Amino acid sequence: MSITTEQLILEKGSELVRQNGFNNTSISLIVKAAGIPKGSFYYYFKTKEEFGVKLIEYLHESIKPLFYSILTDSANTSPIERLQDFFSYFRSVFSGEDVLSGCPIGNISQEMAATNPLLREKLTDVFDDITTPISLCLEQAVSQGLLSENSNATEMSNFIVNSWQGALIALKVRNSPEPLIIFEKYIFNEFLNSKTPD
Amino acid sequence: MSITTEQLILEKGSELVRQNGFNNTSISLIVKAAGIPKGSFYYYFKTKEEFGVKLIEYLHESIKPLFYSILTDSANTSPIERLQDFFSYFRSVFSGEDVLSGCPIGNISQEMAATNPLLREKLTDVFDDITTPISLCLEQAVSQGLLSENSNATEMSNFIVNSWQGALIALKVRNSPEPLIIFEKYIFNEFLNSKTPD
Repeated sequence: MSITTEQLILEKGSELVRQNGFNNTSISLIVKAAGIPKGSFYYYFKTKEEFGVKLIEYLHESIKPLFYSILTDSANTSPIERLQDFFSYFRSVFSGEDVLSGCPIGNISQEMAATNPLLREKLTDVFDDITTPISLCLEQAVSQGLLSENSNATEMSNFIVNSWQGALIALKVRNSPEPLIIFEKYIFNEFLNSKTPD
Repeated sequence: MSITTEQLILEKGSELVRQNGFNNTSISLIVKAAGIPKGSFYYYFKTKEEFGVKLIEYLHESIKPLFYSILTDSANTSPIERLQDFFSYFRSVFSGEDVLSGCPIGNISQEMAATNPLLREKLTDVFDDITTPISLCLEQAVSQGLLSENSNATEMSNFIVNSWQGALIALKVRNSPEPLIIFEKYIFNEFLNSKTPD
């Protein structure tokens, strides 16, 4: 199955944006990587901002099914184990790259969320689809007696996702997966453990 | 006391980089904001990269004394209270801005650390000067019996600083200080509290 030109632009564009940032990825660079004339870009995207909106939507649609399948497939594992699988899976993805570039959504957020309300709104949708399945896991953990019934699953999922995003910045600064290992250690061995009912 | 042209460039440049990102802040924009001819910029900074290095050094020197004074002044408060003062102080700074732009060092890190080893090295120095005084606080808390003697102050300080940086991305995405409030709640009421000796 061949991909459409629009998908090709989004795929090549997403790689470039990850490594170089959104603002530093020119349309010339994108069309060069995609091997298409500049006019083709403007056929699909009227402006760079529209490309940004569709890029976030493209990333969102690519990763959303993965989030829910890892985090809400309750066939074999406990909700806490699913959370561990989730962060462990993405640690191996983000640690295995030649250039440790962290989370594409976190990167665009850091660069664009403060100043571009349209992109901010799209980024909020993505963050909601990271925190929601994590919150569902935590709610299940509460109902299974694995976490204290006083736990606030929504706030906890926000704390966990934000802490993870911060560890992904540190991955780049330290050029090492160690911040992700420390994150998982404290979240699972201490933070969630401390909320285990007596 | 008047500031030098170099300081003026760094001050105006730092404001622009915070809101627009490093790559998106052109030299033309900086010299316009500083009200100087373009040649003056190149007199002080041979390249944009050299400007980046000096900008990080400038931010580092501006904030380092503040970090140590809040976190290591043991005159009146306990080490845990000093940590609370630190995060509370920066919450009020970062929440009070017209455009919620988060941490300048986190912003440059997210954008530049993966691809520019020279800037990455300078950013590492700044992160070390955030984690070190926090680690000193945690060590004091251990020695005063406020935290378990099994606590690893270095790893804990890294976890706390990275989580904070993640909350500062979320501040921008959510356009709200709530992520910082949740961060402080979980770090102080639960994470550090759970490490209190029995």
